[in-house]
Amino acid sequence: MNQRMVFNTVGKILLAEAALMLLPTLVSLIYQESCFSAFLLTIAIAAALGVLLMLISRPKDTVIYAKEGFVIVALAWIAASLIGALPFTISGEIPSYIDAIFETVSGFTTTGASILTDIESMSHGLLFWRSFTHWVGGMGVLVFVMALIPSLSERSIHILRAEAPGHNVGKLVPRMKDTAKILYLIYIGMTLAEIVCLLCGGMSLFESVVHTLGTAGTGGFGVKADSIAGYSPYLQWVIAIFMLLFGVNFNLYYLLLIRRFKSVFRSGELWAYIGIALASVLLISIDIWPKYQNFTEVLRLSTFQVSSILTTTGYVTADFNLWPDLSKTVLLLLMIVGGCAGSTAGGMKVSRVVIMLKRIGSEWQRMLHPRSVKTLKFEGKKLENTTVTGVCNYILVYFICLATILVLLSTDPTAFGFETNVSAALACFNNVGPGLAGVGPVENYAAYSDFSKLILSGAMLLGRLEIFPLLIFFSPSTWTKKG
Amino acid sequence: MNQRMVFNTVGKILLAEAALMLLPTLVSLIYQESCFSAFLLTIAIAAALGVLLMLISRPKDTVIYAKEGFVIVALAWIAASLIGALPFTISGEIPSYIDAIFETVSGFTTTGASILTDIESMSHGLLFWRSFTHWVGGMGVLVFVMALIPSLSERSIHILRAEAPGHNVGKLVPRMKDTAKILYLIYIGMTLAEIVCLLCGGMSLFESVVHTLGTAGTGGFGVKADSIAGYSPYLQWVIAIFMLLFGVNFNLYYLLLIRRFKSVFRSGELWAYIGIALASVLLISIDIWPKYQNFTEVLRLSTFQVSSILTTTGYVTADFNLWPDLSKTVLLLLMIVGGCAGSTAGGMKVSRVVIMLKRIGSEWQRMLHPRSVKTLKFEGKKLENTTVTGVCNYILVYFICLATILVLLSTDPTAFGFETNVSAALACFNNVGPGLAGVGPVENYAAYSDFSKLILSGAMLLGRLEIFPLLIFFSPSTWTKKG
Repeated sequence: MNQRMVFNTVGKILLAEAALMLLPTLVSLIYQESCFSAFLLTIAIAAALGVLLMLISRPKDTVIYAKEGFVIVALAWIAASLIGALPFTISGEIPSYIDAIFETVSGFTTTGASILTDIESMSHGLLFWRSFTHWVGGMGVLVFVMALIPSLSERSIHILRAEAPGHNVGKLVPRMKDTAKILYLIYIGMTLAEIVCLLCGGMSLFESVVHTLGTAGTGGFGVKADSIAGYSPYLQWVIAIFMLLFGVNFNLYYLLLIRRFKSVFRSGELWAYIGIALASVLLISIDIWPKYQNFTEVLRLSTFQVSSILTTTGYVTADFNLWPDLSKTVLLLLMIVGGCAGSTAGGMKVSRVVIMLKRIGSEWQRMLHPRSVKTLKFEGKKLENTTVTGVCNYILVYFICLATILVLLSTDPTAFGFETNVSAALACFNNVGPGLAGVGPVENYAAYSDFSKLILSGAMLLGRLEIFPLLIFFSPSTWTKKG
Repeated sequence: MNQRMVFNTVGKILLAEAALMLLPTLVSLIYQESCFSAFLLTIAIAAALGVLLMLISRPKDTVIYAKEGFVIVALAWIAASLIGALPFTISGEIPSYIDAIFETVSGFTTTGASILTDIESMSHGLLFWRSFTHWVGGMGVLVFVMALIPSLSERSIHILRAEAPGHNVGKLVPRMKDTAKILYLIYIGMTLAEIVCLLCGGMSLFESVVHTLGTAGTGGFGVKADSIAGYSPYLQWVIAIFMLLFGVNFNLYYLLLIRRFKSVFRSGELWAYIGIALASVLLISIDIWPKYQNFTEVLRLSTFQVSSILTTTGYVTADFNLWPDLSKTVLLLLMIVGGCAGSTAGGMKVSRVVIMLKRIGSEWQRMLHPRSVKTLKFEGKKLENTTVTGVCNYILVYFICLATILVLLSTDPTAFGFETNVSAALACFNNVGPGLAGVGPVENYAAYSDFSKLILSGAMLLGRLEIFPLLIFFSPSTWTKKG
């Protein structure tokens, strides 16, 4: 493995993180908060480490393969989280470093699970940093770097592949760097649009920015203990709609920009995504009707929660832990499905679910009519066998990881019970945030032991990076064998 | 589809069921119980229906294909359950026919989930019938008929394939009928061995027979409210060991009989099964140690519960609902794994889990070393791609069914909560019996609505017949198209 190239790139990431941290530093300066110095110290540490890594590992050649891509992504995300957690602990606002790591991993992975018991006492600088990690993590730390740094070769598609969510990541345009730039421009454009919409609804600039960063990354960190519940219906609708928009494959927005409307209209994943959302809203509306008995309120509550959970954002406007069983079950299943591939959302991804269903359907046909041969198609193209196999493997590994996380969580000395543990595992692994019972919408993850918090942090990284980069990173053969 | 052959075979099944019901009739005669007349009436109905079906659908040819095999199995199991439920309702001991259907389906599918709130007041005849359905359903209603009826052609392998648990059912010997006979002889031999062992421990003849029938079918119906907890440690160990033995692939016993010890020793599934059982016993023993603090008791309790849940039997000697989270989580995961293929146990089957893990391992190798080519092996043979694909499809369909059952259960007007619903779905779909919380070891399924009971009955059939026969049976195209 090209280890020099790996550490060199991670060094660049740390420098980029130091640069990104200037923004929250500015916020803390504006509000004249004491966390200012914590940010400055962290920036110094990140920059020094970054330069050091780049100096001691000047690559002899810049060639990287799939394996390097996976390892770079895993290491970069771990390093960025460890550094990103420092301001919380240095400022004393989250005294425990493990808690700070949990909060930062939750930020970068766009999970939005929190250990904070009193959000509203946090400083503006750190609240901004929390939500900003969502925004950066949503599109990808490395995609960001690739859009900026000129030196990376075309081989860096392996990095994009390893970091981007979904089963099949391609380039939009021939040059990798241009693809990364286009994606970020769309991302920034949509982010600005949401900020403007929220400002129009009377939200303050700071809160508009923080909530937009949390929506764009499908993260879910906010500034209030009751999340979005205290805001006006208009603001709730704006956030609900933008959550859904950020859960759509960004390639479709690019297709819209270049006016290939037909391709957008024909996207099987998009229709499945819309269908799942509508069906869930309908089911939950019927289920919670007796509780509220007001059409607009029921529609707003169900749409917001479905939009938030399906896109794995995690903002809430109702304590769905108090909803009937059916609604809770539907929301838990939505956590597993997640948003579209190539969006900022987590979960298994709608495309994988669609491909799995198509595969099952075709096997079903083959069982009934053994001699019929049918080609599977998805998004207008023939589905290659390797793609289908890859998707099925991913889903199998997904369930094995989920079971492992659940068993490890069950060893927590505090007996949280089955519902809390299962929903915590689902909410973290799928990068959602809130779960049910002990980790429900009005609760938080503070009660878990340090060991469990590290397990859940690992689960969030596994979910965001889609399992394989971390597995390869921690696989001994990656580091011992030559190859 | 050869519909005449389908209905003709189902007619034979009903005649066979009428014949089988002579045994519980005899039991009720010995104990001079009033359910005697209920059995006689049911036998008359079953025989009349069976003869009628055979008369009106004399097959023009006896050729059947895979599709006929699936449909015969689905229809036979549904018909046998509807008829088998009659004695409960006619005798008045289970007044609701839907409750009786639940109990009978639970019997035939070897689940052992019960709606009875007062088992100990039931008559001997019906208690025997309940456990006898386990024994018949364990090896297969149709395998039984095939072993007896001479007229079925060699094509009936399709019936065996559709009914037998596991991904890959072959013949032990060239003639289908002989295979079925050998399987039943082994089954009867082991059943007699357990009865003798239980009698030696001082259990009464009636209870020995009933518990052995429940163990052999990996069902779990007993005669006491506290299941096996009230019996001596010796009797508990006997049942624990026989449960594990009945969870082993019966082909291995055949190999033992013909002295091919090496093949048995090399069975990957057997070792995985033993490994899973030992690891679970160890984990649970450590977990429940603080609660009991007695080595022999802890070992007995953990072994019994692991053996019972892994083999999906469902006898209990402890209320594991009161155990710590880790033990409960491990037991729920064991429900999903289930016993070996070709045994009487339910669940996903150890062989499928092993094949899935092998497949993931090989894909993992391919990811690290893209140019390496490795052949997958299982039980000494090369794993065909179609086998691996079939197993993966099964597992995917398995999880979709589980999610569907869970959503339907969540619509129950009584709010049972997440833990009860999830464990009820798992316990019925995997043919285990007891779940957690509201359907825990000391609870029962009586509180569910009629709709939920029918859903759970469907789940039990889906699990026992491994999904596809029922799906094909209820697929409109099976009945409309010619083919």
